[in-house]
Amino acid sequence: MQEYPKPLARLISELQKLPTIGQKTAQRLAFFMLKLPDTETVQIAEAIAQVNKLLCYCNLCGAITDTNPCYICTNPRRDQRVICVVEESDDLWAIERTNGYKGLYHVLGGVLSPLDGTGPDELGIDKLFQRIRQPDAETEPVQEVILATNWTTEGQATALYLIQHLEMFEVAVTRIAYGIPVGGDLEYIDEVTLAKALEGRRKA
Amino acid sequence: MQEYPKPLARLISELQKLPTIGQKTAQRLAFFMLKLPDTETVQIAEAIAQVNKLLCYCNLCGAITDTNPCYICTNPRRDQRVICVVEESDDLWAIERTNGYKGLYHVLGGVLSPLDGTGPDELGIDKLFQRIRQPDAETEPVQEVILATNWTTEGQATALYLIQHLEMFEVAVTRIAYGIPVGGDLEYIDEVTLAKALEGRRKA
Repeated sequence: MQEYPKPLARLISELQKLPTIGQKTAQRLAFFMLKLPDTETVQIAEAIAQVNKLLCYCNLCGAITDTNPCYICTNPRRDQRVICVVEESDDLWAIERTNGYKGLYHVLGGVLSPLDGTGPDELGIDKLFQRIRQPDAETEPVQEVILATNWTTEGQATALYLIQHLEMFEVAVTRIAYGIPVGGDLEYIDEVTLAKALEGRRKA
Repeated sequence: MQEYPKPLARLISELQKLPTIGQKTAQRLAFFMLKLPDTETVQIAEAIAQVNKLLCYCNLCGAITDTNPCYICTNPRRDQRVICVVEESDDLWAIERTNGYKGLYHVLGGVLSPLDGTGPDELGIDKLFQRIRQPDAETEPVQEVILATNWTTEGQATALYLIQHLEMFEVAVTRIAYGIPVGGDLEYIDEVTLAKALEGRRKA
């Protein structure tokens, strides 16, 4: 059996490092790239090689950014009195896409996970507390912290930890609503979501 | 709404050039790459940038290769009397993975498709005829040409074209079998495949 030429085998194995890309998909992508003109593959390669080099974490909120502090933290039209706590930068952009939130963010960069050795120190939770304590005289005091961690065991544990520790500050602590998704049919929704939706019912 | 930082947006848009990768998958891959150490992303980038530069088409059979002629054409243990015609190099490696074929290949690099302007000249079909005519005294004469184009309209049309034009040579022309795939349940197989399987029945 003749094996793939080395550069092709190497590309297929590199592509398989990525999530959701198995052997078959890696092969399909590699063969597609083989047919691309040189300029195109070089562009893709450059974008990959540079993404880590040109981006960093915002010193204030922890979001992934190409300026430091990030565009959101330095935007004077953002409401500095509200901080939304999310797990990762992609959660931040998911909320940005709703176009409905005008406050600031705090990106934890993970969740509390004792088994993986991720404690409050690793998540920079102290930094959040510091922002609320407001050492910087120029910024407005924080009035509300919205917890928007994911609905997973770790996400919820992280939210509970934050709720306990935010009690010592004079801020309102809120959580995003958990319930039926848009288009969700009650008949097909799992019981936990349904129970949560009932529990979180509001006046119509 | 705050948009992605430019290097991230660029990577997401570059990744979307690839087949089966839409907006959501591109985002997931990009965020994964962001978390990789620099050395890893550089490795992926290099593999992509180099694949086009280090690989070429074999002068004899048209397969993608990093040596010219390719390993298969230059392998003395390969049976030079049999040529298997496939559409693309990935079909060649699919057959190689069966570990059951010891002859040579001829890679067309596509199929006849008048609408896309792909005629016999674009596919290098002349090169195949030339190999059969055997201008090179060192190689053994070709005795059999196996047609292994895909079971699509264009693949079948290409096979028919080859059958017509191979009549003028003294070679046996065969086609791979089309029928029920392994594990295929007759009840769930489409009628065309089933009809083909019946038509192609063999003595048990």
